[in-house]
Amino acid sequence: MSLRGEVVAIGDELLHGALLDTNSKWLAGALERVGVVAQRFTVTGDDPALCKEALAGACERADVVVVTGGLGPTLDDRTRDVVAELLGGPLWFDEASWQQIHDWLHRRGRPVPESNRRQAMLPPGARALDNQVGTAPGFAVRVGRATLFAVPGVPREMQDMVQRHVLPATAALPGLTPTAHWWLRVLGPSEAALGERIEAWMVPGRNPAVGITASGGLLTVRVVGTAATAAEAEAACAATAAELRGLLGDWLFAEGNADLPELLVQQLTARGATVALAESCTGGQIAAQLVDVPGASAVLRGGVVAYSNACKTELLGVPTALLDQHGAVSEPVVEHMAAAIRERLDATFGVATSGIAGPEGGTADKPVGTVCFALATAAGVRSWTLRIPPLGRKFVRDRAVYEVWRALLAAQRAPTD
Amino acid sequence: MSLRGEVVAIGDELLHGALLDTNSKWLAGALERVGVVAQRFTVTGDDPALCKEALAGACERADVVVVTGGLGPTLDDRTRDVVAELLGGPLWFDEASWQQIHDWLHRRGRPVPESNRRQAMLPPGARALDNQVGTAPGFAVRVGRATLFAVPGVPREMQDMVQRHVLPATAALPGLTPTAHWWLRVLGPSEAALGERIEAWMVPGRNPAVGITASGGLLTVRVVGTAATAAEAEAACAATAAELRGLLGDWLFAEGNADLPELLVQQLTARGATVALAESCTGGQIAAQLVDVPGASAVLRGGVVAYSNACKTELLGVPTALLDQHGAVSEPVVEHMAAAIRERLDATFGVATSGIAGPEGGTADKPVGTVCFALATAAGVRSWTLRIPPLGRKFVRDRAVYEVWRALLAAQRAPTD
Repeated sequence: MSLRGEVVAIGDELLHGALLDTNSKWLAGALERVGVVAQRFTVTGDDPALCKEALAGACERADVVVVTGGLGPTLDDRTRDVVAELLGGPLWFDEASWQQIHDWLHRRGRPVPESNRRQAMLPPGARALDNQVGTAPGFAVRVGRATLFAVPGVPREMQDMVQRHVLPATAALPGLTPTAHWWLRVLGPSEAALGERIEAWMVPGRNPAVGITASGGLLTVRVVGTAATAAEAEAACAATAAELRGLLGDWLFAEGNADLPELLVQQLTARGATVALAESCTGGQIAAQLVDVPGASAVLRGGVVAYSNACKTELLGVPTALLDQHGAVSEPVVEHMAAAIRERLDATFGVATSGIAGPEGGTADKPVGTVCFALATAAGVRSWTLRIPPLGRKFVRDRAVYEVWRALLAAQRAPTD
Repeated sequence: MSLRGEVVAIGDELLHGALLDTNSKWLAGALERVGVVAQRFTVTGDDPALCKEALAGACERADVVVVTGGLGPTLDDRTRDVVAELLGGPLWFDEASWQQIHDWLHRRGRPVPESNRRQAMLPPGARALDNQVGTAPGFAVRVGRATLFAVPGVPREMQDMVQRHVLPATAALPGLTPTAHWWLRVLGPSEAALGERIEAWMVPGRNPAVGITASGGLLTVRVVGTAATAAEAEAACAATAAELRGLLGDWLFAEGNADLPELLVQQLTARGATVALAESCTGGQIAAQLVDVPGASAVLRGGVVAYSNACKTELLGVPTALLDQHGAVSEPVVEHMAAAIRERLDATFGVATSGIAGPEGGTADKPVGTVCFALATAAGVRSWTLRIPPLGRKFVRDRAVYEVWRALLAAQRAPTD
């Protein structure tokens, strides 16, 4: 028997377009690492009746329910009230929690509004989970056969509380099923063609399960395995990945259990290599995604968002004549950009992108979706052009970013550049 | 009576950490513009039993249910099968849909795998919704009292199909309640202090509803109103916003129904102004967020991701002596950066950031969270320093990005710079 998890995210702002729920994905990943398999996420608004229905359903279906949000000091924060109602008892005032809230605000020289007292109210039978990053304490309570954890909606507060309280308490529950995953990254075939190639692995009920995800031109073959121990789950995934690897051949350009920018930072770091970027059509997205990875400062020398021709000439010394003769979206121009940024910032790799993301700007010669790439190394500069399907500005840019990860990861594997 | 909407997103990749569900938020926004109020999002995996339970619940609670994902050609795509089972009848083969899939692949010179035939199977009573961006047709079908729309999970295919089919069909349903929203952006107070100030507006059942969202140091006061017509809903929101505006005073730095980068691009465009960026600790995030806004190329001249000192001297001409004397995180250095990028790229505004995002790099003098900003205009350069609470790398960076939006929006309001 395995433990089933559900996440319930509460907040009108999540339903009505003000905020994207990123907590559920993070929580599911954290729960799965201790052996609770996520089976559903629910996002609901602040309305108490709808909240209560969502929580009641989750507590009936799952063994572990994590509720995020609705613990703030304001009147639209109603998680405590709803859980108390679900349990059929009144809230009680937890003096110890109030002391912590008071001290937290006091230490920071902030006023201690009376409204914060609401945050020290707990449902019957609940145990407070202290918050070291903000004022809202969380709580843990039994609801029927489920263990319910209520944690804040602010991601940094939520993550800290989950790591200090929810994961240790969950890991102590009986009946856990450790899970492991492995991702194989593919560029080239259509989703259907990839699906046919690995069809025999994509059968319902298989363990490890094999599935395909398509995102911005990138295909990911997901391998997810469960077993009695984490090590066995990992070994099962590795065995399935080895079978798939042979079938994927050249389509496969990266694999692991990390995102592509993270993989690249790991590999660059291991090699002591650095990268410098000259981004035109990708507009800083490559840099921003790298900077998100802790430790990026050791490998990213910096870059230029060369969104205008002035930028290309002023910051990268691309000759006006070159731009006039070939246009900004051309292999000679990206070659110059990549070599210039590599040299100026003294990096191992210089990368440049220039393309037409659309919707305007295409010509017969260079339709929307045309993107030129260059990679400069100590051995010289190489350039190439992709005709990315013109499926929208974001699609073209995302596909171009994936192409850069592909090229840089391939360069790590090259003997010496 | 108002129409209630729910979104069900299907896919193991959404539950198990491979992909973030961004479709539900987009769909809820689109539905609300035609008058359907979102009351719940559900994310479920590919398991048919769990899928069926999620869909059945949504169809019982809501008037309009949009299901995204699970329409692909591979065996783990089971939305059609689950809906057919829910309706208690067999799938049927839609010749017209198959012809469209065939033609779509053929026109692109791609092979037509037999597995794509699965995509032309429809549940009993369903009407096909053609896909002009990919191969998977969607469908519309009545399930109990709900109208269910099944659309692809790939965002660009989903959005195209929703705009061409789902919204027109939904707008024709009886019982619609037009909704409008308005966001007031606040930097400064704590969430509790803000909540106390506007407490009288945050009562359950109020229309327009008023709520607060906290994200990376930014507080957003959300005003959401419903009325018989879209114009009346907008007027009601405007009236509530006017009441709040007086209470918020200096805390308020922007408002509207668009995201901050979008607001800024609108205002810069209206004024014919341009911006150039020299980003150190924000690492390209400001550029990337601007480039995401259509029309950004008219206002963004370009920028430098000056992540290393070499970058600051090589690309922006910051004298080594200045870096040695004051350090990279200092007002003299950001002033030089902002002025240099403004001049080199011939922009109206030059902006520079340099700070210590952490977790390492802090000193007694300049603890983690110290960020220096500079804004250069024709009138000169102004710099200032924030001590951002050291609540994690991402928090510091996000708060720094918000500060730049604040400063640039304020600069738009200044008489002449």
